[in-house]
Amino acid sequence: MALIVQKFGGTSVGSVERICQVAEKVKDFRARGDDLVVVVSAMSGETNRLIDLAKAIQAEPDPREMDVIVSTGEQVTIALLAMALKERGVDAVSYTGSQVRILTDSAHTKARIQHIDDARMRADLSAGRVVIVAGFQGVDEQGNITTLGRGGSDTTGVALAAALKADECQIYTDVDGVYTTDPRVVENARRLDKITFEEMLEMASLGSKVLQIRAVEFAGKYNVPLRVLHSFKEGPGTLITLEDGAAMEQPVISGIAFNRDEAKLTIRGVPDTPGVAFKILGPVSAANIEVDMIVQNVSHDNTTDFTFTVHRNDVRKTQDILNQVAAQIGAREVGGDSKIVKVSIVGVGMRSHAGVASKMFQALSDEGINIQMISTSEIKISVVIDEKYLELAVRSLHSAFELDGDATEDRL
Amino acid sequence: MALIVQKFGGTSVGSVERICQVAEKVKDFRARGDDLVVVVSAMSGETNRLIDLAKAIQAEPDPREMDVIVSTGEQVTIALLAMALKERGVDAVSYTGSQVRILTDSAHTKARIQHIDDARMRADLSAGRVVIVAGFQGVDEQGNITTLGRGGSDTTGVALAAALKADECQIYTDVDGVYTTDPRVVENARRLDKITFEEMLEMASLGSKVLQIRAVEFAGKYNVPLRVLHSFKEGPGTLITLEDGAAMEQPVISGIAFNRDEAKLTIRGVPDTPGVAFKILGPVSAANIEVDMIVQNVSHDNTTDFTFTVHRNDVRKTQDILNQVAAQIGAREVGGDSKIVKVSIVGVGMRSHAGVASKMFQALSDEGINIQMISTSEIKISVVIDEKYLELAVRSLHSAFELDGDATEDRL
Repeated sequence: MALIVQKFGGTSVGSVERICQVAEKVKDFRARGDDLVVVVSAMSGETNRLIDLAKAIQAEPDPREMDVIVSTGEQVTIALLAMALKERGVDAVSYTGSQVRILTDSAHTKARIQHIDDARMRADLSAGRVVIVAGFQGVDEQGNITTLGRGGSDTTGVALAAALKADECQIYTDVDGVYTTDPRVVENARRLDKITFEEMLEMASLGSKVLQIRAVEFAGKYNVPLRVLHSFKEGPGTLITLEDGAAMEQPVISGIAFNRDEAKLTIRGVPDTPGVAFKILGPVSAANIEVDMIVQNVSHDNTTDFTFTVHRNDVRKTQDILNQVAAQIGAREVGGDSKIVKVSIVGVGMRSHAGVASKMFQALSDEGINIQMISTSEIKISVVIDEKYLELAVRSLHSAFELDGDATEDRL
Repeated sequence: MALIVQKFGGTSVGSVERICQVAEKVKDFRARGDDLVVVVSAMSGETNRLIDLAKAIQAEPDPREMDVIVSTGEQVTIALLAMALKERGVDAVSYTGSQVRILTDSAHTKARIQHIDDARMRADLSAGRVVIVAGFQGVDEQGNITTLGRGGSDTTGVALAAALKADECQIYTDVDGVYTTDPRVVENARRLDKITFEEMLEMASLGSKVLQIRAVEFAGKYNVPLRVLHSFKEGPGTLITLEDGAAMEQPVISGIAFNRDEAKLTIRGVPDTPGVAFKILGPVSAANIEVDMIVQNVSHDNTTDFTFTVHRNDVRKTQDILNQVAAQIGAREVGGDSKIVKVSIVGVGMRSHAGVASKMFQALSDEGINIQMISTSEIKISVVIDEKYLELAVRSLHSAFELDGDATEDRL
């Protein structure tokens, strides 16, 4: 008898009919004898409706009160799913993030999970109940309602699986697995049966959008086997696990990821003194803005240029901060560019293979695509290019690294 | 500097515009230097929307899960009002019933308040914040979300006023006060400046619908001065307080109340033995069905007839229970009639005046209205009549007890 955490996103619970379909699915699983904890998101559209309501009152809604409002979205879904299960003779009980006690820090609208009480859930599971938990939300030490930010329901699922030492965390979505790249961009992209946490982490953070990055981080940290599946279609999905002995036989590159949501910020003519990177990024980080790529070139004339990327939503705020920082440290100017994309090749195989980078740069060069920034890690190489070249770059890399599949029939 | 609890109902917070109007009103009060705790209901229509959603999943929704769903209605309103106040430069903070800690029993969908923690609210008031609390909801000992049932937001308001020893609890509604009777039935009904808790209790329980009965009970028990006012129109409203020395000068009757929501149930041929009333009403009460009028006639042939009224929604359920009880105790038959109304005259003045009952019965007799049940207390006399006579009965009693006003201009 296994303990499985299942997470259904907003589209999967987007209507009364869909909630009933999910209930049928959960009922079938339960009939096999597994213990189940089910995490659900708000019904699709609901979170946006609530945000619009808030913004009609306050252009920049108070974050604490925003969390009070948006958390009601999942609260409705958990109760509806519990009712749907009871209606089908399956005993179930719903919990908000606050009730389960998903303890988070107090960073409203982007809180981080610190601890989960498993006592209440274990008691329900022992009593034969399906436990339904609201995704995306938690509670801080003072009892304030918090939310984890968009996509946070995946994180809730994995965090619960880790706390309960579940056998598997299944993320049900509107795709049937993780692909070598976005099938909307490359027609013959292939579904991967298996991928390592590290690879998935790079894929997710780089914009594959199947899973939230924090979910994969949690899963890797606590070694929770994670499976991405389609909500309403049978299939094995993609299993995400620790790298195993078979890794050497894997292809060099597992997939091509890309991200359209970033913007590039440059602070030029920075005096090249120790601690200057912290002086620049400290205030950005303090404002809870996440920084992705960071590139600093070698200096000349004792000044250097410092470039990094943030989410496009944070560009204005980051520029304001940089202007202040530039004045303080005596930098020359601050520039920003939102018309860029990041394209990355990812694969644990590249660790043992030389020449991956040059092959990537050659493929881009062959298409006349100029590279604006480069950043590398052990298992990925990312480049920032003009956004107009996105599709061309992804397709040529997918083909250069021999990722193209033959059939597309089994895809959605 | 006074401490005032203000409660705004669903219509008063029914749209973004109205929430902003309420915020302006609260801001004005705050500017006078009073400490404010504001209780709000769900936006009008929202509770019904949520109930419909639940019923689409489960015809008879699970009560615990129902409370999880419907409590989101107020949770949205508290945050929106807090935002609207902050937008206007007024510091404010919102709390759900669970956060304030409005502790209730576990009777889901009709829970009763047991205790309120005032520590958190007092700290906020001391810090100069307006405290906004979700009406209608609470939390039980186990942390389950509960609701107080329809109209429970009034009760929340008064209970908070009692816990905080507030100077006044103001209930904002869509009427400008308590009237001698429903102005829709009697055109020249008058607004009362003042009424006692006892009278209001009888008026409320008998269907005046301005205030929820439990709110008045709480207010009377803890001597919280209660004022009914119009949300968006200036005026003194009606103050509800303890009976004072001037009571002797009050008119004999303060008002005529009526209730269309009741149904009459009769169990005939009941063996007239000690404990039989409990055997009948015990199971009804155990099913959380509220019983209003109870009449037992003198027995003949060692059997008696037992009649009582319940809310029309509970008729089916009550009849099922009575059929079982009748079989157990050997009663002859069970009958039900929903086509009745209850009409009552209310006034502390009747304590010291004889002949009030006969005057009432004569007025009804003059119109040829047959009385089906009679029940009396120190300050009210109620009769059950055929529903078709409702308007006629109320108008003739209003006139017989000289309640008619001259002008109707200041009414809504």
